[in-house]
Amino acid sequence: MKSCTEHLWFNIKKRRDYLNITSQVQDVITKSGVQEGLCLVNAMHITASVYINDDENGLIQDFDDFLEKIAPYDVNGYRHHRTGEDNGDAHLKRQLFGREVVVAITNGKLDFGPWEQIFYAEFDGQRRKRVLVKVIGE
Amino acid sequence: MKSCTEHLWFNIKKRRDYLNITSQVQDVITKSGVQEGLCLVNAMHITASVYINDDENGLIQDFDDFLEKIAPYDVNGYRHHRTGEDNGDAHLKRQLFGREVVVAITNGKLDFGPWEQIFYAEFDGQRRKRVLVKVIGE
Amino acid sequence: MKSCTEHLWFNIKKRRDYLNITSQVQDVITKSGVQEGLCLVNAMHITASVYINDDENGLIQDFDDFLEKIAPYDVNGYRHHRTGEDNGDAHLKRQLFGREVVVAITNGKLDFGPWEQIFYAEFDGQRRKRVLVKVIGE
Repeated sequence: MKSCTEHLWFNIKKRRDYLNITSQVQDVITKSGVQEGLCLVNAMHITASVYINDDENGLIQDFDDFLEKIAPYDVNGYRHHRTGEDNGDAHLKRQLFGREVVVAITNGKLDFGPWEQIFYAEFDGQRRKRVLVKVIGE
Repeated sequence: MKSCTEHLWFNIKKRRDYLNITSQVQDVITKSGVQEGLCLVNAMHITASVYINDDENGLIQDFDDFLEKIAPYDVNGYRHHRTGEDNGDAHLKRQLFGREVVVAITNGKLDFGPWEQIFYAEFDGQRRKRVLVKVIGE
Repeated sequence: MKSCTEHLWFNIKKRRDYLNITSQVQDVITKSGVQEGLCLVNAMHITASVYINDDENGLIQDFDDFLEKIAPYDVNGYRHHRTGEDNGDAHLKRQLFGREVVVAITNGKLDFGPWEQIFYAEFDGQRRKRVLVKVIGE
């Protein structure tokens, strides 16, 4: 069994943003030499998500509108803020969009449908944060 | 390490529907010969989900009601529709119910609790779409 | 390839509660002897979740408030209750928070960011329920 572990670092300028990281994940898979296996891609921070959906600007704005409607930024709205934080909304948004994706590697490539793209979703940015890519297989 | 990759094809007649695919996933595991390992089951399209819950008709209707309430079908309601699509709701429903499940294989079988069943959830049907099943292990 | 399978049993006294199970998962990884691999942690019941977020009491209460607002306990509110159950809300809460996490094992340890903690979220407790931990790797 082969394995490969890489950390991708991001420093998103905005509080919230959505970044297509598909090619960076494929680069790790290629580097690993794994032809058949699984690849885990997860946010290492608890106010960010990794998810798979379409790379279409209107859709990404729809996602952001939805998350802000259902779990709005609100300085006075979360018990978590008694710790001095103001990012309770970001923890909730992350719960809804998920921490991780697990993707199949077939013939050394991401085994994807036509529109699948991997996104890093930042809900509390403006600082350096990491995504873990772990490949296992043969 | 053994691996096995299969695509399951579906052509759901309704716009939205929920299909129990547990036995088809077990068939792929059996075919793979893997006794101990992991099995990834993911929608290859971004307006569908794979999830695990109970196969009870009332519950499935509750799920559908919930998703339609929180992310309703609305021709004029999503920026994504400027592309000519009308399925913004389906992308959101998929985000909430998730893309994939990863399940344990123990002694060649799905290692499941008493009520766990794998579902393909279609949110924008009436055309051919795929689910990927990837098994790795020994 | 090595593998290891353990069931963690819980009997939560309250209807809903959130239990940090990180050290129990690490114990299974240590026992497995796996240095590089993946670890699946999933609820085996369909009214409970496994998720990763911060172990902060205010945040956990925010999560519980959010889930109860969006998918409230309601004896008369779900079609699923025609079966005699009263836990339709718990099935929905579980869908939103997810069934499972897949975590990377690097050098025999959970490869985690600074605040990542694994939680078992019970939405219909007061009885014995299980979590599956499956480790594969080398």
